[in-house]
Amino acid sequence: MSERIGFVGLGIMGAGMASNLIEKGHDVVVWNRTASRMEPLVAAGAVAATSPAEVGRLCPIVMICVSDTPDVDAVLHSDDGLLGGVSVGSLVIDHSTISPGATVGFAEEVAGLGGSWIDAPVSGGSEGAAKGTLSIMVGGSEAAVERARPYMEAFGTTITHVGPVGSGQQVKIVNQILVVGSQLAVSEALLFAQASGLDLEATLDAVKGGAAGSWMLANRGPQMIERDWRPGFTIDLQQKDLRLALEAADSVGSPIPGTALVFQMYRALQNEGLGGEGNHALVKALEKMSGIEVGSP
Amino acid sequence: MSERIGFVGLGIMGAGMASNLIEKGHDVVVWNRTASRMEPLVAAGAVAATSPAEVGRLCPIVMICVSDTPDVDAVLHSDDGLLGGVSVGSLVIDHSTISPGATVGFAEEVAGLGGSWIDAPVSGGSEGAAKGTLSIMVGGSEAAVERARPYMEAFGTTITHVGPVGSGQQVKIVNQILVVGSQLAVSEALLFAQASGLDLEATLDAVKGGAAGSWMLANRGPQMIERDWRPGFTIDLQQKDLRLALEAADSVGSPIPGTALVFQMYRALQNEGLGGEGNHALVKALEKMSGIEVGSP
Repeated sequence: MSERIGFVGLGIMGAGMASNLIEKGHDVVVWNRTASRMEPLVAAGAVAATSPAEVGRLCPIVMICVSDTPDVDAVLHSDDGLLGGVSVGSLVIDHSTISPGATVGFAEEVAGLGGSWIDAPVSGGSEGAAKGTLSIMVGGSEAAVERARPYMEAFGTTITHVGPVGSGQQVKIVNQILVVGSQLAVSEALLFAQASGLDLEATLDAVKGGAAGSWMLANRGPQMIERDWRPGFTIDLQQKDLRLALEAADSVGSPIPGTALVFQMYRALQNEGLGGEGNHALVKALEKMSGIEVGSP
Repeated sequence: MSERIGFVGLGIMGAGMASNLIEKGHDVVVWNRTASRMEPLVAAGAVAATSPAEVGRLCPIVMICVSDTPDVDAVLHSDDGLLGGVSVGSLVIDHSTISPGATVGFAEEVAGLGGSWIDAPVSGGSEGAAKGTLSIMVGGSEAAVERARPYMEAFGTTITHVGPVGSGQQVKIVNQILVVGSQLAVSEALLFAQASGLDLEATLDAVKGGAAGSWMLANRGPQMIERDWRPGFTIDLQQKDLRLALEAADSVGSPIPGTALVFQMYRALQNEGLGGEGNHALVKALEKMSGIEVGSP
């Protein structure tokens, strides 16, 4: 039995995910703060709601995909917010990447109204959202996750239930710690190679298949050599996630010195107006320190 | 036409490499400072020389595989050192991981005697040496590298000529910067996951296939969760290579702040007597800071 799906937040990620739901034949109700972003979805067959509360009243399952903790807070608590439409049996699926601690609080509020919550942050970028090939890290009860799974399969190819509510957000932070640590290593390695006068492509070929190998080296290394800073994921979004990582790591007492270093380096790049470039532009922080530039345009 | 091959340095790496040369049918002369280490090779068909100079006189091609720059220096310059046996047409292949700057100096000395030098540090560990599956990063002239290639194929599956003399050592440093950067990221990520109460195996499964993925995460992550600190590569050897990396990066003016951080962390672990553990024991530095321990025995 297919349930009607609400979708709140039609940014570059949410629009792709909602489109995939519609394409797979689901009955979808959408809402977005900027109303014009609903138009292409309505043209594709979705119904436009007038508020998050209305989405909640119309749909037993509501997906949220917004930017940060305060945005989810606003979706839930503003006038005509989603909590006004949640009732017994409602399931809220939050695909945003937000604070694990705040997530637990939101889930408790929804549970108080008889509903349930799963946190299901995604990775794979706008391309993954459009193609329906996202990885989804899911926290919540077994029953809620199994109820949500067939709908998440509309846009996700790897859906991993990692534990109770909040653990999806924690695993997303684990993911981001790994991503920026790899990015720092690739940045240092390529700048050293450049400074040493090495052929960067031959260098990549020599090291990428062994213990030095990573997704970041294989995928962003060649892009860095070409000085192509178009974002798969912007510095501004990366920095938002690192702020969540630093807060969460602080709260559990876990030192993340490399991640903290990368945060400071991205902060310097944001100050230079580079927040819209891809996260692989991290190397520019080292370039500015050294006066050396990787690759050639 | 097959040339006679000398092999100087029969440590855990060199013994495996020399064995593979003998197995592939090459005519091999060996020398090692501790004579008893020559015995298994002689039993397999090698001839034992009495000094590096004699190896040079007997063999047109001489491979060296020792630990560090001073060891190569001793092989070349001690009484009855290899330079005493080098003559016009000699080819010296240095498989040690040593200073790129010192390498250029050694190559010039050999060139002054009419010989040539290639630097060919390896990665893949003792297992790769024994199985003949090493990756070899090679610096030197095209002619010298092509002359050496059929012999290196006895123990190497990926042989990449990256540039002139010294560039093999530089690329090995690039490799080590990437290795320890990945190791730092994996250490921070797993300790945060542990501190957050996550299931570590489910967490690994959720993140390893995407942008967070690396050889280190896939191969050392599970070992760290099991607190198996047996070395693929020891902290002491890693630290020797990081000292080379810090010196080389300083000499070319390239900042490597993450690598420098890892060096300090490994230094603390060496002070605790952990230098013989695997380089993935890096996480223990974070554990000591936090009182949190990854995984369970």
